[in-house]
Amino acid sequence: MTTAIAKVGRLAVVGIGPGRLGWCTPEVADRIASATDLVGYTTYLDLVAVATDARRHGSDNRVEAKRAAAALDLAAAGRDVVVVSSGDPGVFAMASAVVEQLDRSPGKWDHVPVDVLPGVSAAHALASRVGAPLGHDFCTISLSDVLKPWDVIERRLDAAAGADFVIALYNPTSRHRPWQFGRALEVIGEHRTPDTPMIVGRDVGRPDEHVQVVTLATCETAAIDMRTAVIIGSSTTRVVPGRPLASSVYTPRWYDRSATHATA
Amino acid sequence: MTTAIAKVGRLAVVGIGPGRLGWCTPEVADRIASATDLVGYTTYLDLVAVATDARRHGSDNRVEAKRAAAALDLAAAGRDVVVVSSGDPGVFAMASAVVEQLDRSPGKWDHVPVDVLPGVSAAHALASRVGAPLGHDFCTISLSDVLKPWDVIERRLDAAAGADFVIALYNPTSRHRPWQFGRALEVIGEHRTPDTPMIVGRDVGRPDEHVQVVTLATCETAAIDMRTAVIIGSSTTRVVPGRPLASSVYTPRWYDRSATHATA
Repeated sequence: MTTAIAKVGRLAVVGIGPGRLGWCTPEVADRIASATDLVGYTTYLDLVAVATDARRHGSDNRVEAKRAAAALDLAAAGRDVVVVSSGDPGVFAMASAVVEQLDRSPGKWDHVPVDVLPGVSAAHALASRVGAPLGHDFCTISLSDVLKPWDVIERRLDAAAGADFVIALYNPTSRHRPWQFGRALEVIGEHRTPDTPMIVGRDVGRPDEHVQVVTLATCETAAIDMRTAVIIGSSTTRVVPGRPLASSVYTPRWYDRSATHATA
Repeated sequence: MTTAIAKVGRLAVVGIGPGRLGWCTPEVADRIASATDLVGYTTYLDLVAVATDARRHGSDNRVEAKRAAAALDLAAAGRDVVVVSSGDPGVFAMASAVVEQLDRSPGKWDHVPVDVLPGVSAAHALASRVGAPLGHDFCTISLSDVLKPWDVIERRLDAAAGADFVIALYNPTSRHRPWQFGRALEVIGEHRTPDTPMIVGRDVGRPDEHVQVVTLATCETAAIDMRTAVIIGSSTTRVVPGRPLASSVYTPRWYDRSATHATA
């Protein structure tokens, strides 16, 4: 072992961005490089491209509370711990799980300094691959009903679509949640025309990235899986005819109900 | 002049993050380092800490369309142009303005490759300074009614608060928009208790950063200005008693209407 044990332990929850080394901030890369222990979902630990001989504590995707407590215990024992998330650690990721553990066990980890280091979020990365679909007011919603009731999700989709937000969807589907994404498109479709632009991105930032611009009517729900992120346009989101994918979609900064596709 | 003129011009819209060098991605730093021309709001150009002898084209904050067209013209003339935004360039920033110009002048810049390089968004950076207030579904809303009618903003605030989203507010106020922020809190207050946590951050990531956790009732609207970003909690957002600021607020990943502050 060449890693040093820090005299006073500490913990950072970091986001390495959505897969691409060029999207990991220097702050996060430095913290990973100096860590003695990396904790996280095994898939994300495998994406860490920073040179480090830190000990890696990989675990399954569904044990966030247990993983957070174990990471805090390591820090309490004097280790320099980094909890690794993909994207931004504050969005449907480990930062909330770690702070929740602090809340549930008052006093237990009082002496452990805990920092959250922000990252490039998956929705922003996906948006950047096609231009600027998040250029106006938007909502970010997880479709997972593992930790919240489905009717809360439907209510939020309905409110967001009704108020004409752009909508970014995380965790659109999984093996155990096969129908939710299709139902979400139905709810949104009550407020949007069938030609509303949608951006569908799988493995954004990784070598096998696949990004498509489709519409609410042409989106193939069967092609969506848990490694996919989705953005659904507002009534003003535009696809620019003839442009390459990277600069083909935007939501204008202005908003004019009487002429959504006209000039400002 | 030691800058080289690229044989084929190109344009990138980049976000340098919210001020701190450690939050600027390597992809963005590399693109700035190789640019011949940097275009942007003068305040943001002054924040560029990457070593470069590129020519700087600074302009006022309110000339986005003109700035975007000028940047495309430079790229069309063979220059390697980088349009600099703070935070993420796709969120209430220059990426939308550039793609809108492409849309408005079909054919004019067809041969110019345009890329958007994502960054750490201001809301995510602010969230990270206090823990994980964006850990559950959230909305991002600009309070500027320069480019959209105020009643659209009120409708969105009402929909977002009514569906119990966490709400991140950009452009909360300015010299020309003095009452909007106070009115926004009134609209949200129709759906939230007075003790709802709020995070108020000024100059996040810069040397004079000032971040506070307040409540809907105790927020001093007079202390808010255009360099401030604000996050307003949902009904489940919690402040952890006794924790330092950096790990003091979170919104749980779970949602239980019958016991918002109880265990999952």
